[in-house]
Amino acid sequence: MKQILVLGAGRIARPLIRYLLGQRDVRMVIGTIDAGGAEALVGGHPHARVLRLDVSDEAALAPLVEECHLVISLLPAALNARVARVALDRGKSLINTSYVSPELAALHDEAERRGVLFLCEIGLDPGIDHMSAVRVIDLLLQAGGRVTEFTSCCGGFPAPDANTNPWGYKFSWSPRGVMLAGRNAARFLRRGEIIEIPGDQLFAHRWPYQVEGQGVFEMYPNRDSLIYVDAYSLTGITGMFRGTLRYPGWCDTMRVAATLGLFDLEAHPWPAGTTYAAFTSRRVPSGPGPLVHRLADFAGVAPDSEVIARLEWAGLLSDRPLPAAGQTAAPLDLFGDRLARLMVYKPGERDMVAMRHTFSATFPDGHREDVTSSLVAAGQPFGDTAMARTVSLPAAIAARLLLDGELQLTGVQIPVYAEIYEPVLAELEEQGVHIQETHAIHYPGPLSRA
Amino acid sequence: MKQILVLGAGRIARPLIRYLLGQRDVRMVIGTIDAGGAEALVGGHPHARVLRLDVSDEAALAPLVEECHLVISLLPAALNARVARVALDRGKSLINTSYVSPELAALHDEAERRGVLFLCEIGLDPGIDHMSAVRVIDLLLQAGGRVTEFTSCCGGFPAPDANTNPWGYKFSWSPRGVMLAGRNAARFLRRGEIIEIPGDQLFAHRWPYQVEGQGVFEMYPNRDSLIYVDAYSLTGITGMFRGTLRYPGWCDTMRVAATLGLFDLEAHPWPAGTTYAAFTSRRVPSGPGPLVHRLADFAGVAPDSEVIARLEWAGLLSDRPLPAAGQTAAPLDLFGDRLARLMVYKPGERDMVAMRHTFSATFPDGHREDVTSSLVAAGQPFGDTAMARTVSLPAAIAARLLLDGELQLTGVQIPVYAEIYEPVLAELEEQGVHIQETHAIHYPGPLSRA
Repeated sequence: MKQILVLGAGRIARPLIRYLLGQRDVRMVIGTIDAGGAEALVGGHPHARVLRLDVSDEAALAPLVEECHLVISLLPAALNARVARVALDRGKSLINTSYVSPELAALHDEAERRGVLFLCEIGLDPGIDHMSAVRVIDLLLQAGGRVTEFTSCCGGFPAPDANTNPWGYKFSWSPRGVMLAGRNAARFLRRGEIIEIPGDQLFAHRWPYQVEGQGVFEMYPNRDSLIYVDAYSLTGITGMFRGTLRYPGWCDTMRVAATLGLFDLEAHPWPAGTTYAAFTSRRVPSGPGPLVHRLADFAGVAPDSEVIARLEWAGLLSDRPLPAAGQTAAPLDLFGDRLARLMVYKPGERDMVAMRHTFSATFPDGHREDVTSSLVAAGQPFGDTAMARTVSLPAAIAARLLLDGELQLTGVQIPVYAEIYEPVLAELEEQGVHIQETHAIHYPGPLSRA
Repeated sequence: MKQILVLGAGRIARPLIRYLLGQRDVRMVIGTIDAGGAEALVGGHPHARVLRLDVSDEAALAPLVEECHLVISLLPAALNARVARVALDRGKSLINTSYVSPELAALHDEAERRGVLFLCEIGLDPGIDHMSAVRVIDLLLQAGGRVTEFTSCCGGFPAPDANTNPWGYKFSWSPRGVMLAGRNAARFLRRGEIIEIPGDQLFAHRWPYQVEGQGVFEMYPNRDSLIYVDAYSLTGITGMFRGTLRYPGWCDTMRVAATLGLFDLEAHPWPAGTTYAAFTSRRVPSGPGPLVHRLADFAGVAPDSEVIARLEWAGLLSDRPLPAAGQTAAPLDLFGDRLARLMVYKPGERDMVAMRHTFSATFPDGHREDVTSSLVAAGQPFGDTAMARTVSLPAAIAARLLLDGELQLTGVQIPVYAEIYEPVLAELEEQGVHIQETHAIHYPGPLSRA
C-alpha cells in the first residue's frame, strides 16, 4: 500500500479523494482543520484516516509527511511554501493546484537534486489550461509552425438556470480567494507590446468573449500572461493573453468596487452599530443628496444603473449592521462577507466552467492555421460541482501517475510536458471532461481548383 | 390595394409591420400616440402612412376604420373593446393578440351576423400556445384517444448571457402589463379537482419545470385554464394547467412583493422627499430594529436571503426619493417604476421565449400516448426580440390569410381551428419559429418480442 497525505479538504476536495480511494493499493491520511467535513467526504472508507491538523504546527505535520509516499496540498496558496519545505526535507514529492509562488520556485534546484517532483498548477486554471494549450502548441510547432497569437480564457460561474443573482456569480471555491484575486495586477502582450495593468485598474480592462453554444461572456486579464511564453515554448509570439471569464456586468461592478476601496486589506475599527450604509457613506465624498446619488456620482454611473443596483443587492446601502461592528476589519472582508452570504449555490443548483483557447500560427509556406480548444462542463445536481471535478481530478490523476512511477520529471514543475498532459487529458476525457478542438487552415491567394 | 389599419406601434409591432409591408397589394395606415417611433419602424416605406392617433377620439378613429379592409389592434387589452365596437359598426374585421374580454365576447353574435371575424389571442401566449396545442390534440382525438392531462407553460425572459439581474427578467412588453398580470387570480384542474388561486396568492403556487436543453424554470398558474377545456375539445379531461415560466426565484420574490402590497392599485399621497426606504418602511410593522430586519421578519425570510437582496436590488431600501414625491401614486406604479428602470435590455442583448406543452392521452385498446411540444426562440442581437416576432408574426400571418380570403370563420374567435392553425404554424416554421414535438407510446403489460 502506498500512503498519500492530503492536506485540506475544502470545496474542491471530494472528486480527488474519491478518485484516489478508488485506486488499488492506496491508503490516505487527510489532515484538515475541518475534520468533520472530511469524514463526510470519506464516508467511512477503510483506507482513509482523517486527522485534525493545523499545518503551521510543524511538529504535527512532519511525522505525517515522513510516513507518506506523496503529499497533495489543497490548502490556500499561501500555505504551500511551508508544506513544501517540510516535504523537501523528507524527500517527498508534492502535488498542488496553486500558482507557483516565488518561495516555491526557489526550491527547484534542491528538489531536482533530491529527485522529488513538486508539481504545481495542476488544477483547472491553472492546470487544464496549460495542458490543453501546450498539447495544441506542441502539434503546431512539430508541424513547423510559429505561434503568433494565443488567447486563453477560463471561468467558473452558475449554470444558466442557477444564475439567480445580478453579479452572475456564486462561490464554488474560497470566497476570500476570489476577493483577493480582484487585487491582482496583470500583464499581457498585444501586437508585440507589453500591456501592464495595475491591480486597482484590473476591472477597467474587459472585453466581450464568445464561447460556442454558451453566448457572450466578459473577459478580463488574469495575472501575468508573459511568464508562460517560455513555459509554453512561444518565443517570438506577438499576442499572449490569459483571461478570466464572467457573465456580463461583473467587471463594471468590480471596477466601481475597486474605486470605492472595497478590496482594501487595511483593517479599520468600526464602532458598534455601524451600518453598511454608513460604511459605504464613508467611502464616497460627503454632501447633501441621498447616499445612492452620491455613490452614483462618485462611481461615474447613473443612480438607476445596473452597477448601483448590484451594490444595493449586496446590501451595501442597507441599514443592516456590519458583522464586525465594535471590532476592526478590512473593507475587503466586510465586502466579501456580504457576497459570501448571498452568492451561494442552493441544493441542486449546478455550476459550470468554461475554458476556451484560440491559437494562430504561421507556416514557412505562407499558410496560417487557427485552432480553438474549448471545455464546457456543468456540475451534477446534488453532486460534485464542475469546479471541484475540473480542479481536483487533474491533481488526482497526476498523483496516481506519480505513485505508479510513470512520471520521470523532478524539480518544481507545471504540467507543460507531454509525459504529464497526455495521460492526464486522456483520463479526464474518460471521466467525462471533454475538450473540443476546431482547426482552420488559411491559404494566401485566390481559391484554385486547378 | 387592400388597406390595413394598425393601431398601436409598441414593443412588439415591428415584425408585423415589416411582414405585411412585404406583401403585394397591401397599404397600411398606422395610428399611434407615438408617431415618431412608428415612422422609424416604417422606414419611409411608400405603402405606409403614420398618423398620430388617440383611439379614444372616435371622430378621428371612425373614418380610418371606414376606409380600411381590416383593423389590427396592438393596443393594451383594455382599449380593444372600444375599437371592436367601431369596427363592428362599419362591418370591418379585427385582429388582436390580447385575451378575449367579456365586452368583446358579447359582440360574437353580432359579428357573426355581419359576417366579420374578430380574431383574438393570436400572439404567442395566448396564440401560438393555442395553435400548437390544438394541432396535437386534434391528432390525438382523430386517432381515437381521450386526452387526460394537458399542461402548457410559456414565458419570455433574457437569454442566458443577457440575464444580468437577480429577478431573471427584463421587459420585452409593457411593464405595466407585466405588473398587472401579477394580480391575476388563477384556476386550473388537478386530478379532477378544480384549484382556485386568489390573485394575492398567485406566486405562492409555483413548481420547477424543465425545458429540454434550457434547464429548470419556475412555473406559476396563468389565469383561468378551465375556459380552454371546451375551446380545445377536452371534455372529460382531469388535469388542465396553463402556466407562466420564469427563471427560478421570481415567484418567491413576487410573493413577498404581494405580501408587502406592492401590487396595490389604490393611489396614496406621498409627501415631497419621501424615500423608497420610507415607502417600504410604511408597509411593514414598525419596530426598533433595522428596516432590513423588519422587512425580512415580516416577509418570513432571512435578512440575507435572495428575496431580500432582490428587493434591495430594486432600490426599495434605498434613500432615493420616490418619483411621485409630492403627488399621489399607487404602490404598483411606484414598484413598477423601479423595475421598469432597471430591467432593460441593453443594445445587443437578446431575449428568449420558451413554451412547452405536455399531453397525455389514453386509447380504447389500453395504451397511452405522451406528447410534448416545445418552442424555444432567441432574439436577434440588435434586431427584433423573440417576443416581438412570436407575438406579432402570428397576427400578421392571420391578417394576410384574411385579406387573401383564406379564412371563412366569423364571429369572435381564438385560433383553435385547423383553418387558422395549419397555415399559420406552417408559415411560422418558414419564418424560423420552430416547434419541436416528441411522442411516446406506452403499452400496458410486459415487453414481448414474440
